[in-house]
Amino acid sequence: MAAALADPSVFRDRAERVRKEMAAQGVDVLLLSVGHDLPYLTGYLAMPLERLTMLVFPQDGPATMVVPRLEAPRVVEQPDVFDLRPWEETEDPVALVAGLVGTARHVAIGDQTWARFLVELLPRLQGASFGRAADVVGPLRIRKDAAEIEALRAAAAAADRVAGQLQRGEIPLLGRTEAQVSLELSRRLLAEGHDKINFAIVGSAANAASPHHHASDRVIAPGDIVLCDFGGTMNGYCSDITRCVHLGEPPAEIVEAYAVLRQAQAKGVEAGLVGTQCQGVDRTTRKVIADAGYGDYFIHRTGHGINLEEHEDPYMVEGNDHPLEPGHAYSVEPGIYLPGRWGMRLEDIVVAAVEGPEPLNHADHSLIVLDA
Amino acid sequence: MAAALADPSVFRDRAERVRKEMAAQGVDVLLLSVGHDLPYLTGYLAMPLERLTMLVFPQDGPATMVVPRLEAPRVVEQPDVFDLRPWEETEDPVALVAGLVGTARHVAIGDQTWARFLVELLPRLQGASFGRAADVVGPLRIRKDAAEIEALRAAAAAADRVAGQLQRGEIPLLGRTEAQVSLELSRRLLAEGHDKINFAIVGSAANAASPHHHASDRVIAPGDIVLCDFGGTMNGYCSDITRCVHLGEPPAEIVEAYAVLRQAQAKGVEAGLVGTQCQGVDRTTRKVIADAGYGDYFIHRTGHGINLEEHEDPYMVEGNDHPLEPGHAYSVEPGIYLPGRWGMRLEDIVVAAVEGPEPLNHADHSLIVLDA
Repeated sequence: MAAALADPSVFRDRAERVRKEMAAQGVDVLLLSVGHDLPYLTGYLAMPLERLTMLVFPQDGPATMVVPRLEAPRVVEQPDVFDLRPWEETEDPVALVAGLVGTARHVAIGDQTWARFLVELLPRLQGASFGRAADVVGPLRIRKDAAEIEALRAAAAAADRVAGQLQRGEIPLLGRTEAQVSLELSRRLLAEGHDKINFAIVGSAANAASPHHHASDRVIAPGDIVLCDFGGTMNGYCSDITRCVHLGEPPAEIVEAYAVLRQAQAKGVEAGLVGTQCQGVDRTTRKVIADAGYGDYFIHRTGHGINLEEHEDPYMVEGNDHPLEPGHAYSVEPGIYLPGRWGMRLEDIVVAAVEGPEPLNHADHSLIVLDA
Repeated sequence: MAAALADPSVFRDRAERVRKEMAAQGVDVLLLSVGHDLPYLTGYLAMPLERLTMLVFPQDGPATMVVPRLEAPRVVEQPDVFDLRPWEETEDPVALVAGLVGTARHVAIGDQTWARFLVELLPRLQGASFGRAADVVGPLRIRKDAAEIEALRAAAAAADRVAGQLQRGEIPLLGRTEAQVSLELSRRLLAEGHDKINFAIVGSAANAASPHHHASDRVIAPGDIVLCDFGGTMNGYCSDITRCVHLGEPPAEIVEAYAVLRQAQAKGVEAGLVGTQCQGVDRTTRKVIADAGYGDYFIHRTGHGINLEEHEDPYMVEGNDHPLEPGHAYSVEPGIYLPGRWGMRLEDIVVAAVEGPEPLNHADHSLIVLDA
């Protein structure tokens, strides 16, 4: 967690606001495990392992964090927010949680909690109904404060520096595999201050047409377009950027398509005015691409929220009529993908503000041509 | 996945064995998402993101992999094992899964599936009962074949090389933060051939008493014991090793405790005979430590299985009476932790074989003293 969140009063205030939201929604108890709702409320990020960590957070009454004894020393206690209940290796943590839930009827559980634990809870909480904790905590998490936006800005600046290294040809591409380039992008993100790599997609030539391509053993060759989409976590906040480079002069087809992509992305950034529906951002980028005849080749939404997690609300997707609010942070990343031939994507992180959208990434937006 | 598993017949054979196990256990349908049961059956590792990937695998009838359209190009199709059903950004993947499950009564779901999706399935599959897919697939996954053991051996050798660098003083410790050392261990694991870092715990002095300590900003100083526990994934298989070093001559108390720890660990490795109950390995290490008077300070189980995942069956813990079988791979990692003072742990990966236990890690087992 960022230092800005270390003040215990932050967690007390959040606990109070979450309880109000629970009352409004009729939720009796929250169960939070892995994922970022737990650190939002307590400052503690659970380890994604087979030993259960779970905060039992009732609408009224004290909250308890059930945690493996060997991980208990990791937890910074917040006595005003929760009690700690370490469990021993031979205890059953699911039974402990079920006991703490008691007769609560409406239970909301964290999105990323392992299904294993919900499966084990179901027969012990018969008659209870289950919902998503994200519906309670999400609306509070989605608006970022100034310290959080500053942390996102710093992470974006670090990602920009690595993108600049790529664009200046400081990361060798020719003759190396995508996987080698992916590792080098990861190392450079760490060197620029990231604590953790979340992904480093490198897709060359036809592989770039697979938006979530796994960097492969394909050797990068002259004439390739190389799509690099990388991000990580720095002081608790995430970065995410996509830039493409071309090895040698690109053919007219790629030059033309990239001009469309660049215009679509720029217009998508501009569309992020406070009050605009999220789907409006998606429609803006999609219209530019569709009008140019590439509509069938833009096969994903325009963007996702970003903060403590790489992907979180708000999503820039058709059907999301939520209006943008000041402090929303999200990606604008249209793409054009010709299966079996090539692909391209251009991505910045943007923060909505009353003065207008602020893009956090400033690395060159053009299709940089490198020697081949 | 390792190249050794790329042969499609591997997946056909596994599908057949899994269906037999489903029949024996009365499971109508498996639902597999993130985690390693899915790649075991299909070769595909789902992305741990908010877009649902889920294999619907009925006991009789064809299996279907529901996958986000933009990730569909990542999937290597196995037409004999499953059909692909890509979903568009504006479709509801949970409704697709519910439709494919139909009227199945006994549903087993992957352990690490996001609870969000189970929450959304519950009201659409009323009357169904839910169990753990791990109970079906786990018994098949737990026995490793020769190619898998070779991959574990290679990952362990890479981890040993980094441990050797640590022990020879090639990784500066004095005056650096735990977090800096953790990053360097991570970089070196990548340089030694790992594709991914799973963790790099660095705990110095009193921080070493927290078994899952998060590498902090504490600056390492003369007189510290430094516990390093790191591992990652290499060609699909995991490494995991713990070694401690001491900066300057250790006090008699630490020398004595380490001698106990080393003996406990060695005896734990030796105890891993085929047919021995898993809890027998735990009892062996624990007895050595308890007999020396440190019983209250060994606060976790002795070990965990390891293969495609860092932690999987079989667990070396009191209460696990499953006997070791040839091809079981697991850690032996006793520890002694004095809260507020110091901690130590010693860990190797071991494979059970009819000829006796084979330790995969060979880095020096002593408490190496480095200049301070």
